[in-house]
Amino acid sequence: MKTIKTQVGIIGAGPAGLTLAHWLKKEGISSVIIEHRSQEYVQARVRAGLLEQNTVDIFKNLGLADRLVREGQEHHGVYLNFDGKRIRVPFGKLTNGRNITIYGQQEVVKDLTEAWVNTGETLLFEAPALELEGIDSQSPKIHFEHEGEKGIIECDFIAACDGFHGLGRKSMPKDSYKEYTVTYPFSWLGILANVAPSSEELIYAYHERGFALHSLRSEKVSRLYIQVDNDDHVDNWTDEQIWEELSIRLGTEGWELKSGPIFEKSITPMRSYFIDNMQHGRLFLAGDAAHIVPPTGGKGLNLAVADVKHLVDGFTDFYKNNSMKSLDDYSKTALKRIWRAQDFSNFMTTLFHKQAEHGSFQYQLQKAKFEYISLSEAYATTIAENYVGLPFETFED
Amino acid sequence: MKTIKTQVGIIGAGPAGLTLAHWLKKEGISSVIIEHRSQEYVQARVRAGLLEQNTVDIFKNLGLADRLVREGQEHHGVYLNFDGKRIRVPFGKLTNGRNITIYGQQEVVKDLTEAWVNTGETLLFEAPALELEGIDSQSPKIHFEHEGEKGIIECDFIAACDGFHGLGRKSMPKDSYKEYTVTYPFSWLGILANVAPSSEELIYAYHERGFALHSLRSEKVSRLYIQVDNDDHVDNWTDEQIWEELSIRLGTEGWELKSGPIFEKSITPMRSYFIDNMQHGRLFLAGDAAHIVPPTGGKGLNLAVADVKHLVDGFTDFYKNNSMKSLDDYSKTALKRIWRAQDFSNFMTTLFHKQAEHGSFQYQLQKAKFEYISLSEAYATTIAENYVGLPFETFED
Repeated sequence: MKTIKTQVGIIGAGPAGLTLAHWLKKEGISSVIIEHRSQEYVQARVRAGLLEQNTVDIFKNLGLADRLVREGQEHHGVYLNFDGKRIRVPFGKLTNGRNITIYGQQEVVKDLTEAWVNTGETLLFEAPALELEGIDSQSPKIHFEHEGEKGIIECDFIAACDGFHGLGRKSMPKDSYKEYTVTYPFSWLGILANVAPSSEELIYAYHERGFALHSLRSEKVSRLYIQVDNDDHVDNWTDEQIWEELSIRLGTEGWELKSGPIFEKSITPMRSYFIDNMQHGRLFLAGDAAHIVPPTGGKGLNLAVADVKHLVDGFTDFYKNNSMKSLDDYSKTALKRIWRAQDFSNFMTTLFHKQAEHGSFQYQLQKAKFEYISLSEAYATTIAENYVGLPFETFED
Repeated sequence: MKTIKTQVGIIGAGPAGLTLAHWLKKEGISSVIIEHRSQEYVQARVRAGLLEQNTVDIFKNLGLADRLVREGQEHHGVYLNFDGKRIRVPFGKLTNGRNITIYGQQEVVKDLTEAWVNTGETLLFEAPALELEGIDSQSPKIHFEHEGEKGIIECDFIAACDGFHGLGRKSMPKDSYKEYTVTYPFSWLGILANVAPSSEELIYAYHERGFALHSLRSEKVSRLYIQVDNDDHVDNWTDEQIWEELSIRLGTEGWELKSGPIFEKSITPMRSYFIDNMQHGRLFLAGDAAHIVPPTGGKGLNLAVADVKHLVDGFTDFYKNNSMKSLDDYSKTALKRIWRAQDFSNFMTTLFHKQAEHGSFQYQLQKAKFEYISLSEAYATTIAENYVGLPFETFED
């Protein structure tokens, strides 16, 4: 039986857990991370690739952004298509110079893992959390397994950054939170392809055949998506069909979509999920453990990092001022941004997906919103400021 | 058989028809108005009472705003309530000094009717249009009846400003337009009461018991509404119950609703309607004949006046430059604002009405939007600029 003592026990070595560990260390607070998957699995897991200005600033402040700055692509705007008409929402101009950076989540995880290992601090892979003990007490414990051996982390606080299916939320008393769930009636067929992006910025498109998104991962790798039915399957689509569909849906006059070899193909359901309380006793949830947003707004990773910001504020307040106030307010503070992100993700999803008959009243309202973006600087600004992420000050009382 | 010759034959002496007649006269174009109701009926008909900046400016330019300026109340903001929390959206600050004016539609109709009669021009009351002839030709005719006699208006153009149930839209070929209809699953129980308004500006409120609106007509008359089911009936409500319900739904700390004798009580269904083509040959539709919006955004009368603006542009272009271009573009031009108004009306309706279980995901999105109004000047601006009415230049290509 291995026993590890630390101030904050962290479950999960994804962006939330790793960012939390680094940030706590900077504040002089010790932590230990356990992750049930292998290092290879975690670092290969393809996820979001859109970093808000807040997120980039946090990684820079933590000294974790060297490769991000070198290899990430800063985008100063986004293209929006509707029925073949294309407009652009500039970010910097509408948000006092705030922008987004395209940099894969797996790259973030690689950078943060490597940096953490270099500090000599503990990070155990293939170490599943088995049970949380004493979350109502002041000395909670994480029971885990590692290399065939049982272990215990004895800590002051547990941070569950262990994703939607993790032990963290399951360990919260059922009556301590309320769940909110929406499953959208469509999914995304996403591809990764070895081809230079056909656009230097993202393109979101409504088309009568359905939504499409042109995104990218690097100068040589494109990431593209099309709206499909929930019961569709990747085997129903040849590479040729996917490219043809993308070309039609993203099409606009004077622009051409370049195609290339597809090396990853998958279907992702679109759903929203959140709980209205992210804390019980000494257990705190962050990231996907507490909320899922549809990928349309690119908010997933950024919400996780924002949760961590509030957690760090709370832990710092506790260890420096011996006050639980900020930690007790954690849910309330974090939920303001989470509700905003849920609404923005819902807005982007309903604006660009085909939901009702093309030409219906519902469609006319979607079209009216699209036209309004090009007519009103204020409306374009609401999209820009949500997309690059609202500053933390915005949500302060 | 009475025959009247004029350039533009106008059906309907509501705000659209009367504004059109006055404006055409100013441009040196003759017109005649027939109205199937009596003068007393038209002038007593209680309708909207919210004039956009554009509308007020038009009446001023036409010299029809003396009493409006004297008796109308200019509002520089609007209050929004959600779960008892109240915020204010200031108009002038967010829209470069544009505002709204509260002045009953029946007062507008009185002013415009009186001014028209004073010019000595023709306006026949209790003169129903019976049939439109030759709308595909260059000399269409309106067959009507007046004082037991049949008559004909021979004109160059027919402007049907005759409301939702009028002959105008019925005379359009069925295949010349597409209809869009939405019936909302709730109605408004509205009252007029002899009591000084409890707020100097309007209050829109979401409450778990349903929507409520505090509006007013004058310094001594208040106009208030509550959301009710579509199958509800005024007889189900005593005056006392209405005041109590209003008091609960509009309530916020430190504010009290004054009650008084109710002298008008009615239930209005909430619906959206529009057609995507407002012209066929020499027949043009304006106002309610072509579109209905739910009253939430206060857009009905203002859309009618905006239609008239585009019609006047078209007729002027025709008579001065012998060009049909602007008239042929009438639908396209007018529909830009109509779509915007439909979307804004839908937005205000869905934001403040109870549509799903209180506390549901849908409710959380409504709440997130409300909170966002207080967090973001850009978002508050979108509400202000739509509410006071977007300038005509906004929609120009």
